[in-house]
Amino acid sequence: MNRAIDLNSDLGESFGAWRMGDDEAMLEVVSSANIACGFHAGDASVMLAACTTAARNGVSVGAHVSYRDLAGFGRRTMDVSSPELYADVLYQLAALDGVARVAGTSVSYVKPHGALYNRIVSDDVQADAVAHAVADFNPALPILGLAGSSIARRARERDLAFVHEAFVDRGYLPDGSLVPRGRPGDLLSGDDAIAARAVELVVSGSVAAVDGTVIDVEVDSLCVHGDTPGAVGMARAVRSALTAAGIRIEAFAR
Amino acid sequence: MNRAIDLNSDLGESFGAWRMGDDEAMLEVVSSANIACGFHAGDASVMLAACTTAARNGVSVGAHVSYRDLAGFGRRTMDVSSPELYADVLYQLAALDGVARVAGTSVSYVKPHGALYNRIVSDDVQADAVAHAVADFNPALPILGLAGSSIARRARERDLAFVHEAFVDRGYLPDGSLVPRGRPGDLLSGDDAIAARAVELVVSGSVAAVDGTVIDVEVDSLCVHGDTPGAVGMARAVRSALTAAGIRIEAFAR
Amino acid sequence: MNRAIDLNSDLGESFGAWRMGDDEAMLEVVSSANIACGFHAGDASVMLAACTTAARNGVSVGAHVSYRDLAGFGRRTMDVSSPELYADVLYQLAALDGVARVAGTSVSYVKPHGALYNRIVSDDVQADAVAHAVADFNPALPILGLAGSSIARRARERDLAFVHEAFVDRGYLPDGSLVPRGRPGDLLSGDDAIAARAVELVVSGSVAAVDGTVIDVEVDSLCVHGDTPGAVGMARAVRSALTAAGIRIEAFAR
Amino acid sequence: MNRAIDLNSDLGESFGAWRMGDDEAMLEVVSSANIACGFHAGDASVMLAACTTAARNGVSVGAHVSYRDLAGFGRRTMDVSSPELYADVLYQLAALDGVARVAGTSVSYVKPHGALYNRIVSDDVQADAVAHAVADFNPALPILGLAGSSIARRARERDLAFVHEAFVDRGYLPDGSLVPRGRPGDLLSGDDAIAARAVELVVSGSVAAVDGTVIDVEVDSLCVHGDTPGAVGMARAVRSALTAAGIRIEAFAR
Repeated sequence: MNRAIDLNSDLGESFGAWRMGDDEAMLEVVSSANIACGFHAGDASVMLAACTTAARNGVSVGAHVSYRDLAGFGRRTMDVSSPELYADVLYQLAALDGVARVAGTSVSYVKPHGALYNRIVSDDVQADAVAHAVADFNPALPILGLAGSSIARRARERDLAFVHEAFVDRGYLPDGSLVPRGRPGDLLSGDDAIAARAVELVVSGSVAAVDGTVIDVEVDSLCVHGDTPGAVGMARAVRSALTAAGIRIEAFAR
Repeated sequence: MNRAIDLNSDLGESFGAWRMGDDEAMLEVVSSANIACGFHAGDASVMLAACTTAARNGVSVGAHVSYRDLAGFGRRTMDVSSPELYADVLYQLAALDGVARVAGTSVSYVKPHGALYNRIVSDDVQADAVAHAVADFNPALPILGLAGSSIARRARERDLAFVHEAFVDRGYLPDGSLVPRGRPGDLLSGDDAIAARAVELVVSGSVAAVDGTVIDVEVDSLCVHGDTPGAVGMARAVRSALTAAGIRIEAFAR
Repeated sequence: MNRAIDLNSDLGESFGAWRMGDDEAMLEVVSSANIACGFHAGDASVMLAACTTAARNGVSVGAHVSYRDLAGFGRRTMDVSSPELYADVLYQLAALDGVARVAGTSVSYVKPHGALYNRIVSDDVQADAVAHAVADFNPALPILGLAGSSIARRARERDLAFVHEAFVDRGYLPDGSLVPRGRPGDLLSGDDAIAARAVELVVSGSVAAVDGTVIDVEVDSLCVHGDTPGAVGMARAVRSALTAAGIRIEAFAR
Repeated sequence: MNRAIDLNSDLGESFGAWRMGDDEAMLEVVSSANIACGFHAGDASVMLAACTTAARNGVSVGAHVSYRDLAGFGRRTMDVSSPELYADVLYQLAALDGVARVAGTSVSYVKPHGALYNRIVSDDVQADAVAHAVADFNPALPILGLAGSSIARRARERDLAFVHEAFVDRGYLPDGSLVPRGRPGDLLSGDDAIAARAVELVVSGSVAAVDGTVIDVEVDSLCVHGDTPGAVGMARAVRSALTAAGIRIEAFAR
């Protein structure tokens, strides 16, 4: 057996005087860093620091592109037109890639953030604007997101690779979607349970939904959160459990 | 005789719903466009439109980098630390270059904007932060600015080319500096006088200062303003006069 | 007969170096000025200038509250939570009112702007957040908007006065709603036709819809646009025609 | 003996998703809260929450006005013109005061923040713009700042009260100014030493400078920092020591 999985986390989310998460620690655990590009978080100095540490640690850099909404941290859906969204994604990709190159690495993939991530699960128009921008910027960049989503389809239509992520600490419904936040079973708790879930996802390619149904989950990358209290400990537990199960932690793109 | 000169102008200075200048018209006159990068003006859509027209018209694209100050249009000096300024310049360069590449061109040079332009005439620390960012991003990019300035020296110390600009509608003091705004003789008026000044600068490499003294002016590029009423007419008059004098209009960098 | 009507217009929409509309001219025509509060347009200096001119001309000041979206000019719907929207509206009301008081006037009413205006035609949750903020800030302030809207109901439930506006240059559907932008008959053209429509609306309280049906329109205020080419001319034509028809131009609130 | 002193702290400095300091805890310790107004920190929701807690705890609210610089947290000097600074201060004062009124309190004083605080120690032009805005908004509001500063003089010339603050954890030079950051003796450490310094300042009106010279310090309010690790503990130690010395903690303005 020679199995590998990617661990990704949202990083570079500080801004100016405000700190969020522990980038230094997380960049010793994950293989892929979704780095904010200045639209929901991450000023130029934060981006440069995150890319520099990622490069030093051999962690792949992903562009965590977002709606333009610092005050809302990119968590509020916006009715942005396709040309605006296309240009905004392009700008963010370009900015991060250039900063990353000076830091000795480059953007290896794209992961939409927050409300944009959620919106393009089902909004074909916004999904296509994102895929279009990525394809025009660099058609070799995969997009990281949810299996079965609009963005997965639109990415493939534009000849982009699409990489599936699963969540180690979220509950699943029998249809494979996530239990919405605030509903029973939305979040797993306990590092051990979460680490076991991670191994289950990778080894079996399936997961027990909240009602006990076992469902298949396509997974190329596991998302571990970076900005909650205990995030670093949880991520380390996940990594240890995967390693102990004989699974290498390896970026899906470089 | 086979003479050529560059004409540069500040463009891409609209933002969101607000228009400034007539980019389409100016991009038929100039050979180099200093395009705002989002920090003092120019959102992603504006940048993309300006780069697309520049590419179509064969106009070189320059990064018009600025302090982060939309409300002040980059016209207010800021005490930004070197690491912040370095990262901010890098971010802007990268963003514009990536957008320009999708538009079929790329950043060919850098011109600091507004208060930053003025500050690094004499501030060695900020000047070096700018030069450092340009050198790290792409050491082949020349910087466009004032002869005899801090940024001219710092650019050369970092092995960057430095390109001198002169102003077709500003008065000069006997020491070669510009007459400060608001003082007698600060601005030339009349398209004919300005066009004649442009030809004088290129043909003779000298200019009559406000007191009549003839002074040498090193000039690789002439700056024509893009955002004042009558800007397009003035720019066309300058171009016509230069052409009539047998001088080609040609970008200094591509 | 002693009839009066209010004329309102969106003003104070410049920002920093960018100009929009001709506030000075419009403030000689209208009786109520919807002044931007800094979230979609209008920095503090622009607000102060607009309030000062409004005060001098006896024009009532309304708070033109918006989503926080400078880059989108408040024209993009956002899924803002009730507590956030409540606080954001409160902040804008407070800022403009304080600035207006220094200028010798004060906020007399509230008109939501752009995407927020459109959203709260039918979104009860966001409508109530707006009404709640207005009621808590000053329960004597009326809200200006569309008859039959969510915000009209929510305003009344919070014991606020609600004032109806009609549009002098927009086509109406037989059900009393506006012809959506981009559809045939969406916009009237010609100062004469628009001025006649204004008089028709006030004198008869009705209007001919695009299909010829005559429909009743409740109207306390007529909205004239301030930021299009020809806006000032159109507004003057409307005012002249109303005056000629014996209708006084008078603010609905002071 | 019946002595009292004010304790002030910079609060309300979170923004959007980013937290800074522990407002809830600090608002149980201090008597005056310098609350950010949205220009360097503090969105509308943060401001409302801080004002609500301050009102509940009987803590006076001060407007912590700043340059418009979120990315720099208001820590970077800016060459803002007098009319711009006047309008920006007015806007911030108005916004916070309106929010505070809905929370059951109001702005009781003004304390400039960060780079603006430092600049108007010696810049008469910016100092006067600040004083002018405060006087026009509400001439009953005192300004809190450094004794012997430009802003102290300008405030008095505009008939504003000026209140002196001293710092419990900063070293003093023999001339009464603070030891610049980064120089030996710039910061006191240890809650006990800092608490003793607080008592010394209030009881004796003097302090031992870094060279041992005892100097007089005019003090109406002691500033305790709110955003450093251990800030809450230090503030509590200062309060306890003052109380134990028979000194009441009492706001200088309500």
